[in-house]
Amino acid sequence: MHIQSLNEDTFIQNLLHNFPVKEPLVGIGDDCAVIPDGQANGWLVTTDALVEGIHFLKDQISALDLGYKTISVNVSDIAAMGGTPKYAFLSIAFPKTIEKTWISNLIGGIKEACSKWNILLLGGDTVGSKRDIFLNLTLIGSAPLSHIKYRNQAQIGDAICVTGPLGNSWAGFKVLQNQIPLDTSVSQLLQAHFHPEPHLAQGIWLGSQKDVHAMMDISDGLDRDLKRLLKSSRCGAIIETSKIPQGPALLEVCQHNQWDSLTLALNGGEDYCLLLSVSSSHLAALQQAFHQQFNTYLYEIGSITAETEKLIYQECGKDFQFKEENFDHFK
Amino acid sequence: MHIQSLNEDTFIQNLLHNFPVKEPLVGIGDDCAVIPDGQANGWLVTTDALVEGIHFLKDQISALDLGYKTISVNVSDIAAMGGTPKYAFLSIAFPKTIEKTWISNLIGGIKEACSKWNILLLGGDTVGSKRDIFLNLTLIGSAPLSHIKYRNQAQIGDAICVTGPLGNSWAGFKVLQNQIPLDTSVSQLLQAHFHPEPHLAQGIWLGSQKDVHAMMDISDGLDRDLKRLLKSSRCGAIIETSKIPQGPALLEVCQHNQWDSLTLALNGGEDYCLLLSVSSSHLAALQQAFHQQFNTYLYEIGSITAETEKLIYQECGKDFQFKEENFDHFK
Repeated sequence: MHIQSLNEDTFIQNLLHNFPVKEPLVGIGDDCAVIPDGQANGWLVTTDALVEGIHFLKDQISALDLGYKTISVNVSDIAAMGGTPKYAFLSIAFPKTIEKTWISNLIGGIKEACSKWNILLLGGDTVGSKRDIFLNLTLIGSAPLSHIKYRNQAQIGDAICVTGPLGNSWAGFKVLQNQIPLDTSVSQLLQAHFHPEPHLAQGIWLGSQKDVHAMMDISDGLDRDLKRLLKSSRCGAIIETSKIPQGPALLEVCQHNQWDSLTLALNGGEDYCLLLSVSSSHLAALQQAFHQQFNTYLYEIGSITAETEKLIYQECGKDFQFKEENFDHFK
Repeated sequence: MHIQSLNEDTFIQNLLHNFPVKEPLVGIGDDCAVIPDGQANGWLVTTDALVEGIHFLKDQISALDLGYKTISVNVSDIAAMGGTPKYAFLSIAFPKTIEKTWISNLIGGIKEACSKWNILLLGGDTVGSKRDIFLNLTLIGSAPLSHIKYRNQAQIGDAICVTGPLGNSWAGFKVLQNQIPLDTSVSQLLQAHFHPEPHLAQGIWLGSQKDVHAMMDISDGLDRDLKRLLKSSRCGAIIETSKIPQGPALLEVCQHNQWDSLTLALNGGEDYCLLLSVSSSHLAALQQAFHQQFNTYLYEIGSITAETEKLIYQECGKDFQFKEENFDHFK
């Protein structure tokens, strides 16, 4: 039996089964592991691998963007728990034939991202590879233990919110695959794909709000990530599809190319927005405060229900079936 | 210009130059980064990548041994600073065609090593790769700040010591390459190569000894690693080659195959013994206490001198030139 019949979640579950972890440590299954520091704070640790030919094509993404993205996708995991990133550890494996300028640009992108979020690169490993480039980043952040948000804390009746429009990064990916000619909107989508901006300030702020119950980032698409949140929290959800935020660039490019923007918004990975559940009685106040703080919206898209793992999409009150299309990179 | 003209140390130096780190943090350049916990302890963080075709051949090492080795080489880095390993984060990238039993065995080896050293696997990333397998482990350990040993603390006049015989792992590698028939000695060398045992208890104990000044592990061969220690500590060394410990299995297999055992002991990587400098006036007492504690020897092999980065090998008091042969895996 080959591993292709075993998806990543199942594999992680198997690992989890093999490595039980006791409280107060939180192990595999959330955006970060949490290691209490013995005082009032927790260390948040996340690790992500980027593989050539799977997560990126060397002739498609610039080394500068790739370096930046290597940091930013991990910053998003720290943001998703309400924490502040601090220390990074980078492993790079590359073949001997790689150009020195490519490596310099990669380091440039990493440096840009580290400066932006005040992260110190404290260590790493640089090794050879036979053919493909591999990047791995481990990022350590911290947060007051009382501010850390988990994906298993959603409560029945909570409002479900997202911190930004969805689908842009996947649309950017489709733009590339289909070689769509550049214009302002197309460039915006490419930017979302190549140079994602994690919602770090929003994550830290939402972490400090007691009415926010569960939180995670959307890295594999709203549909897939929401199902993970529901599984962790042992609850269900109703999502009103008309409320899912879609940006003007997405709508324009989709209309022009006859793509279904809702499918992109629901399935598209690498959005790096935050997905959260909020006490419904405090939602309006939280939305107002969020808008005052960031001048962007906290979008309510649905609510948490009692039936475990049951996810219903509705369009104007009627059940809605959408086409599942996984964000599969270059696989 | 391609990266093949730029060796790993130079590349790390370039990274270091790009990312200056302020005290009390210690960044790139030692076995681990040190992050003070705000009290009397420090977190030690190390990360290592293992790449198929470079660090291992899938048809040569068992998945069980590979899993074990992924943990143990990082444990050696924690031991080298005097720390205790605590939490591991594992990234694995593998092609879709990989066998499920191979993955299960890899996890089995990781589990065996984690159980042995009381390490919790708290997170990771499992992703696809196009062709080759890539493993990355980040290991977090801890130690009292006063016990942490650095490679830049050697003092002129110190005795230079190692905690075990050298060259076995590389001899095991040569045994494989040359398809030497198995016997008891050959098996011992293969075991050293496939299933290295870091000197963790020794590292923790040596960390607690104030007369130990500098310490690091020998992962790339005594010659190469000692040069790093001398560079960090801005001093030189004289090594008496006859004092370099070589085990009976190494000597026997080398004699039989007409290999020069000293070349293997000086150049051979992946020994995972500890290399340290000790106040010479306290050496005898430390050696005695070490032997009582571990029933193995702390081998004195030379002394620290004043001339920065000057490394002299002597054989019975005369200068000795040896053949440099880097431990280059499958490159």
